[in-house]
Amino acid sequence: MSDIVYLNGEFLPRERAKVSIDDRSFLFGDAVYEVLRAIRGRYFEPERHLARLAAGIRALELPDPAALGMDPMAAAGELLHRNALLEGEATVYIQVSRGAAPRRHAFPPPGTAPTVLVTVTPFAPRVEQRARGVAAILQPDVRWQRCDVKAVNLLPNVLANQRAAVRGAYEAILARGLTITEGTHTNVFAVVDNVIRTHPNGPWILPGITREVVLELAAGEGLAAREHPLDVEDLARATEVFLTGTTTDVMPVTAVDGTAVGAGRPGPVTSRLGELLQARLDAL
Amino acid sequence: MSDIVYLNGEFLPRERAKVSIDDRSFLFGDAVYEVLRAIRGRYFEPERHLARLAAGIRALELPDPAALGMDPMAAAGELLHRNALLEGEATVYIQVSRGAAPRRHAFPPPGTAPTVLVTVTPFAPRVEQRARGVAAILQPDVRWQRCDVKAVNLLPNVLANQRAAVRGAYEAILARGLTITEGTHTNVFAVVDNVIRTHPNGPWILPGITREVVLELAAGEGLAAREHPLDVEDLARATEVFLTGTTTDVMPVTAVDGTAVGAGRPGPVTSRLGELLQARLDAL
Repeated sequence: MSDIVYLNGEFLPRERAKVSIDDRSFLFGDAVYEVLRAIRGRYFEPERHLARLAAGIRALELPDPAALGMDPMAAAGELLHRNALLEGEATVYIQVSRGAAPRRHAFPPPGTAPTVLVTVTPFAPRVEQRARGVAAILQPDVRWQRCDVKAVNLLPNVLANQRAAVRGAYEAILARGLTITEGTHTNVFAVVDNVIRTHPNGPWILPGITREVVLELAAGEGLAAREHPLDVEDLARATEVFLTGTTTDVMPVTAVDGTAVGAGRPGPVTSRLGELLQARLDAL
Repeated sequence: MSDIVYLNGEFLPRERAKVSIDDRSFLFGDAVYEVLRAIRGRYFEPERHLARLAAGIRALELPDPAALGMDPMAAAGELLHRNALLEGEATVYIQVSRGAAPRRHAFPPPGTAPTVLVTVTPFAPRVEQRARGVAAILQPDVRWQRCDVKAVNLLPNVLANQRAAVRGAYEAILARGLTITEGTHTNVFAVVDNVIRTHPNGPWILPGITREVVLELAAGEGLAAREHPLDVEDLARATEVFLTGTTTDVMPVTAVDGTAVGAGRPGPVTSRLGELLQARLDAL
């Protein structure tokens, strides 16, 4: 972990960065967050990340940090500098909670200041895992019905990801009934009948930035890709499965619940999309 | 708010009680909680509350505070004393989070200490509201599928309760599809065809302590009561509707979405159960 973080307008050492026990993110999970990739001090798709953050703030009617003169991206730039992360790779974490107030479910009085946190962390791309592919497990998707909001109500994600970790898998792929939605912190793609497919945006998945970029890259390559639900049978007969995410890039899944996907190694479509994404990252 | 709280073994002023920005309750909502009623220093149904807390800790595989020598109820007793709340009424709030650790979805390394918070707050029973009855609104139940765990993933409850507050209602009654489950912080009962009904325990509702006590009180009175799902049509033709909860007691609902329930005033079954619960509280 890096040493200097930003909290409510202040830059301070991580161990001194503390929030009230009455913070609504601590008591209710009443907050949204974003994770961005920074490479040599430049961000990958910052406009899309900030648009999603703004959408989350609107959806939850959270107070807007900008209205209080707080600028998370300016803070992120300062943090990359102060933590000597302007050279290599880093992740930027931004969280906006509804602030601290006496506990009651309904919103606190207008004027309650949000809690705005920004941290940066050195990041090492998962090059080895991307080359070999990773294992995934299937888990029931028991999350709420507003998974499009990047909120910190992440307990079901935590529990499913922990089950994956215990079984030596990188990710848990979630199925709502028979429908594959996404992973606990990734979007899920599969190549079925030579078509790249992923669940359409909507309340059951997060509108992933890397997901969107990969769909654009596929279109640019003339690869057939559709935003169309996958079910568990589609996944079982897919010739390739891969995950996307800000810290996951394009990650081949070579086994699901112990059964090989396709030939049991990264497939050509996955590898090509991974190269194209890497080229975008390298060009930053 | 009271001034002295308990946090991880320490008694300290509330304004100095702060948690790490890396606390998993702040980042993931990875925590369970309980709220108990204290009357003149005595607790209402403490064994049932503690059993539910223990069940939540087991369900989420949280570290057990007891294993670290922390006793939330001993802390609660000390807090009632220090905050001069041994005479009147108070609520006790207990929260156990998975503790602070570098952010990743899966559990932190074994040995990561939980964050244990206990606070007490003066409480005034809602006597006036109980006498007159309150309004409720109907809202879609978009929560996750483990509502039986009293976790701090409460954002859907927050949003629905806020909608109620904006419309001048006490509570939002949640419907999963056409099935009435519970309120955002209460259980829901209705009298339909002279039978008291409430949703059976299971993953869609919290196993409310007051709910359970009220079912026992009804049985003791020889009143017909069934744990059987209610749908929105049942609710519409119910002659009485009421809510139960630790801070709600037995609360008559006299209007739902602006339409009167029964005669538009607290009904006889609700009033009788309210009296019986009050007698139990008075006898503490």
